[in-house]
Amino acid sequence: MARTIFHSLLATAAAVGLTLPTVATAQSLDEVMERRGLTQQDLLAAAKTFTPTGGRDEFIVFASGGQSGQIMVYGVPSMRILKYVSVFTPEPWQGFGFDEESKKILESGYIDGREIHWGDTHHPAISETEGNLDGEFLFINDKSSPRIGLVNLHDFETQQIVVNPILQSTHGGAFVTPNTDYIIDAAQYPGVLGRGFAPLSEFNEKYRGAVTYWKFDREAGRIDESKSFSLELPPYSQDLSDAGKLVSDGWSFTNSFCAERYVGGIESGRPPFEAGCSQADTDFLHVINWKKAAEVYEAGKVEMINDHPVIMMDTAIEEGLVYLIAEPKSPHGVDVSPDGEFIVVGGKLDTQASVYSFSKIMDAIEAGDFSGTDPYGLPIISMEDALHTQVPLGLGPLHNQFDSKECVVYTSLYVDSQVVKWDYCEGKVLDKLSIHYNIGHLVAMEGESVNPAGKYLISLNKLAIDRFNPVGPLHPQNHQLIDISGDTMELLYDMPVPLGEPHYAAAIAADKLKPLVRYKYGTNSRTGERHEGAVRPGQERIERDGTNVKVYMTAIRSHFTPEIVEVNEGDTVEFIITNSERAQDQTHGFSISNFNVNLSLEPGKTATAKIVADRPGVYSYYCTEFCSALHLEMTGYLLVRPEGYVDEAKAGEEGVSYSEADYTKQVENNLATQEVIDSVVVYITERNYTDFPDVAALVEDATDQLTFAEDAKAKSEAAAAEEDWQNATLWAGQWWQYQVKAADIGLRAKNYLDENGAVKTAE
Amino acid sequence: MARTIFHSLLATAAAVGLTLPTVATAQSLDEVMERRGLTQQDLLAAAKTFTPTGGRDEFIVFASGGQSGQIMVYGVPSMRILKYVSVFTPEPWQGFGFDEESKKILESGYIDGREIHWGDTHHPAISETEGNLDGEFLFINDKSSPRIGLVNLHDFETQQIVVNPILQSTHGGAFVTPNTDYIIDAAQYPGVLGRGFAPLSEFNEKYRGAVTYWKFDREAGRIDESKSFSLELPPYSQDLSDAGKLVSDGWSFTNSFCAERYVGGIESGRPPFEAGCSQADTDFLHVINWKKAAEVYEAGKVEMINDHPVIMMDTAIEEGLVYLIAEPKSPHGVDVSPDGEFIVVGGKLDTQASVYSFSKIMDAIEAGDFSGTDPYGLPIISMEDALHTQVPLGLGPLHNQFDSKECVVYTSLYVDSQVVKWDYCEGKVLDKLSIHYNIGHLVAMEGESVNPAGKYLISLNKLAIDRFNPVGPLHPQNHQLIDISGDTMELLYDMPVPLGEPHYAAAIAADKLKPLVRYKYGTNSRTGERHEGAVRPGQERIERDGTNVKVYMTAIRSHFTPEIVEVNEGDTVEFIITNSERAQDQTHGFSISNFNVNLSLEPGKTATAKIVADRPGVYSYYCTEFCSALHLEMTGYLLVRPEGYVDEAKAGEEGVSYSEADYTKQVENNLATQEVIDSVVVYITERNYTDFPDVAALVEDATDQLTFAEDAKAKSEAAAAEEDWQNATLWAGQWWQYQVKAADIGLRAKNYLDENGAVKTAE
Repeated sequence: MARTIFHSLLATAAAVGLTLPTVATAQSLDEVMERRGLTQQDLLAAAKTFTPTGGRDEFIVFASGGQSGQIMVYGVPSMRILKYVSVFTPEPWQGFGFDEESKKILESGYIDGREIHWGDTHHPAISETEGNLDGEFLFINDKSSPRIGLVNLHDFETQQIVVNPILQSTHGGAFVTPNTDYIIDAAQYPGVLGRGFAPLSEFNEKYRGAVTYWKFDREAGRIDESKSFSLELPPYSQDLSDAGKLVSDGWSFTNSFCAERYVGGIESGRPPFEAGCSQADTDFLHVINWKKAAEVYEAGKVEMINDHPVIMMDTAIEEGLVYLIAEPKSPHGVDVSPDGEFIVVGGKLDTQASVYSFSKIMDAIEAGDFSGTDPYGLPIISMEDALHTQVPLGLGPLHNQFDSKECVVYTSLYVDSQVVKWDYCEGKVLDKLSIHYNIGHLVAMEGESVNPAGKYLISLNKLAIDRFNPVGPLHPQNHQLIDISGDTMELLYDMPVPLGEPHYAAAIAADKLKPLVRYKYGTNSRTGERHEGAVRPGQERIERDGTNVKVYMTAIRSHFTPEIVEVNEGDTVEFIITNSERAQDQTHGFSISNFNVNLSLEPGKTATAKIVADRPGVYSYYCTEFCSALHLEMTGYLLVRPEGYVDEAKAGEEGVSYSEADYTKQVENNLATQEVIDSVVVYITERNYTDFPDVAALVEDATDQLTFAEDAKAKSEAAAAEEDWQNATLWAGQWWQYQVKAADIGLRAKNYLDENGAVKTAE
Repeated sequence: MARTIFHSLLATAAAVGLTLPTVATAQSLDEVMERRGLTQQDLLAAAKTFTPTGGRDEFIVFASGGQSGQIMVYGVPSMRILKYVSVFTPEPWQGFGFDEESKKILESGYIDGREIHWGDTHHPAISETEGNLDGEFLFINDKSSPRIGLVNLHDFETQQIVVNPILQSTHGGAFVTPNTDYIIDAAQYPGVLGRGFAPLSEFNEKYRGAVTYWKFDREAGRIDESKSFSLELPPYSQDLSDAGKLVSDGWSFTNSFCAERYVGGIESGRPPFEAGCSQADTDFLHVINWKKAAEVYEAGKVEMINDHPVIMMDTAIEEGLVYLIAEPKSPHGVDVSPDGEFIVVGGKLDTQASVYSFSKIMDAIEAGDFSGTDPYGLPIISMEDALHTQVPLGLGPLHNQFDSKECVVYTSLYVDSQVVKWDYCEGKVLDKLSIHYNIGHLVAMEGESVNPAGKYLISLNKLAIDRFNPVGPLHPQNHQLIDISGDTMELLYDMPVPLGEPHYAAAIAADKLKPLVRYKYGTNSRTGERHEGAVRPGQERIERDGTNVKVYMTAIRSHFTPEIVEVNEGDTVEFIITNSERAQDQTHGFSISNFNVNLSLEPGKTATAKIVADRPGVYSYYCTEFCSALHLEMTGYLLVRPEGYVDEAKAGEEGVSYSEADYTKQVENNLATQEVIDSVVVYITERNYTDFPDVAALVEDATDQLTFAEDAKAKSEAAAAEEDWQNATLWAGQWWQYQVKAADIGLRAKNYLDENGAVKTAE
């Protein structure tokens, strides 16, 4: 039976075209709308969000993953989640925490010797240039363990984790200064600076907050811990921060709750924290001159705590670095307007938003006009002197985001479950929209930059309750997309969040992102440098040094080199693997059965799987990413010989023997296949394929595969010349495998050309 | 300044209604379509998939997460991802691997003493009753470490992981028999049974495959390892499996590739695995009489390997348990038709699908009509005798899914990047559709059951390449939704997969799932039993036994009890926490700063965070799930006293002191607030709110909060009676906090009623 008729069908396919013509649908739009219960308003929302195959989103959102320790990336307006990027939590699909390169990043985030394998990510910040989002880097804080993670947006990988040396909990980060000179991170719950101990009876005296200014070295693409410093603050629970911009550049703002300095203890009859921390009508906004603070730090006016320079409060008072202003009851967000002049704060147990004027604040500071000092001697500017206006918005105002329209801001109302649109210049409410339910943060497109992009707003709801199909007691969150292009807000789309609980999100115009599709050959993606263990095809080898074995390996469709690795029980084995593919999306994985390793090897990447061969046995390694038709065959054996085992070095018997006839049959098949491939090549090259960069890349990839085919063909012919029909047949088979890969790519290219209106340019 | 005008605004809100009227949109549908470049066909696809806020999906898909070790859950037709369920990989949002209860599940999946923190999940299977999906349990295999995970669909949590005792790699699972008596899992790469060692030179003699039948105890909701058994198979790479059904019930089918038994070694000049494993024109389908095998196992005709009963091949031959049939070149999927009569296999390097007839196979077996035996003596049924038909489909046929329409099957074509719809009775192609790109599995709604539901098909594409906004070298996968209700297939929607690489997926009618929204009070969700450490409010306590400290805690909006826990350096501390909420979606989290613990406490759940207090210091614990307006205040302190520390037991000074005037002001505020709450209560109860179960639940929750408010009020009044204005004021503040929570819920209920057309039923 000649079942392997690959070539004949391929020939047909090339001749008649692969897709049947589209037949007009039997169902009309009206029928569908009626069946699905859609209104005209729903249809409009569908048209505003639906993105057909191959379509692109206008904006990209980076949402913190909350206690998942990851970042979620999605597109607007399609609200399709494009990627989860692991920052603090190991994740095997990305190899994060399962290869040696990323383990080093995670280990740099361990605290006081403790292994931490998760994070409570809150606030992502995209790097800025002159107050505009530049799309190069992303920073995010961890609330539970006081850390900042850095994601390089050229490959969406985490490249650095830094640990705060003095705090036990942070919340007011990450926020960047307008040129990303510093990343701001403020404390949350007070502790003893340097993570020391003091009893709660000494709370007022020994517990402190602080704000840390992490220095960013853009050239190196890294936070420079050696040039970072902190500022001691009172034991209020510092909360969110924002950097000044334009007129207020050089200043930063951090608010607080529990300025009551209340310590709970419900178990011993005291009212709980929630009562004592929300009793007073006001808390304190911290107004900080960070540019001057940086000078004070450089002048050495610091105390070293846990080897980290801290400007103490006495110095801050003396140098005029920190001022306090009362802000309404238990505020949550503090947001600086695009022009830098206004600072908007909502007290979550108040009903009003308070708009402070930066110029009024400066006037008060310059005039030395203070209403008093707090218990630690920090000067207090009176609220009346600093306020531009106060506007009653509703119940539970939390956060603010700015529109491209002048003076327009959006504020989340947690208790009301609403978004309110209002004018912060004139102080009046413009519109309200109900969301579902209990909104926390909200994000407008580039809404924290000096040039907000408007158009869309997303409501990051804390509860979903009844919005989606039930999936057990743990519900998804609900991100609701809102059209803000018109005078009134329009709810467009509900997006369930399937993993984690995002707090804040940052949204950037998609065209500002310029991610790579492949790495420079042999890159260690976690350092950005060439990997010292990278090898080119032909350089693969196994090196032994005592009980340490290093396997320098390559991966390509559809095999690893080497395929057999033999070691002794007790050896430590490192597989240092380079993906030698150049084609986009041609990722390989690597795992070893029963071991805790998995690599994600994108084109050009080099990464290391390290194991201790602790038990004798037979282990399979294989590609964990479905890379090609022969993906399942992309495998190898790790043999771990028992202690004392002596290899008899006898050759194994072949499972199947091949004859000259088998060889001849395979070669005939290959030659016929080549004719078909040639016809596809003609089909493509007769068209304007170079006008389609994706197709040009596919053609390049196919050409590579055909070069490999030539090499296998040569091996096959060499074996045949020696009448070694076994190897001649098998290499001829391998030659055909490369042809299949070339055909796969060729058909993909042809399909693309057919669907994208390529035209015939040659006869 | 009277900024806390909560009550006045609330009053206004209640009086005028919270939402502004919807203003007709300025943008017309035509304008939006033109701006976004949508065709009429696009709009129809949008109408078929767009799901407005609160809408439900008709089907729920459970997709394996591949090397992420998770399961992805999404809705059809909206293609919105609802949840990631961790099975083999720790994930902190769910507390999986971060609480003691789930750690036990993960630890049961460790292999030969090795900690494994990931899995390569491939094939999910929903439990069946009489061949119909019943929606109770989900099983999934791990290819890298030979394990099966069990997810209970009443709460979408992983409750069991079992390790295969004899294999080093599996792939042909999980597949269930029609009443879920057994879960089938077959080997992938051959090894030495029991995970022993043998050199590759003895591959043919000592390496073996196998298939394991895991016994499922539905009553216990667990796989019963003590009643499970395996069947030894030749060292072909067994691949996918399927269970017979109806006429073929009692039989199972497992195919294979590399029946050539080829061992690669490209590093030593041998052609790679991919060549040698795909050289022959055919491989072997294993046809297995599992019902008879179960009897043979029960009769004790087994060898114990690693304490696990294995029916050896000699016994299988003697008892007539296993038959082989040639199947075309390197097949991947084997799928049994809804009526159980046909078995469809595509050879991925062939162009045809082969349809085998179960009755013809039975005829051959009954007649003893075999064409020979394989090298291990297993009888081979000739392909001609077993075939119903062969149909040329295209390049790289992989998997098959069945339609509700008689005789209609869909097959994925990997190399062609197409789905082909064809008639397996008549043996003819009906339609082809191009997908993007390189489809692996595909899933039709309930398409593997005895009653396929038709309507939709999803193409699980392995490459996305150019479909989405770029997110770095590691691309998302692409799941494409296809409308199969008409004569021709219509592509509706591209869904990027943001995490992991799904292999197979199972789709079930949404109304068959009946998940919980809350646990019975004090449930250990990983066992389903009452947690021995669960406490009711009022029973909270701290117990010390030597250096072991147990904190029996409750969590409720917005505090933990206790709030202060003091231990000594070196103590082991367990926080055993019960969420005492009853309201849907009212989850709390729990983390301790700088420690590697995070809990997800859904209503009623009890879980344990265990740490070693290895360093003295001040640590904050807090709720990691934004649960309420005072979520940030839901905190406490763990104090770890340094070795030798002697507590002076002095009382701390209050941060703020409150007077009688403060008390009076707070009480006045509360009384005014209560009036407003009463008015909301009237608004709700005057309407037919009991017709809305979600609202009825909210009202119940609000009533709870008001009961708590009464309790705080009593405490406040008791303190006032003793002129303890500090506690009187703070408890009055707590009373108000409960009022805020009640108002929050009340407004949510009111909002729901307004949006869902509730009617006034009382005056």
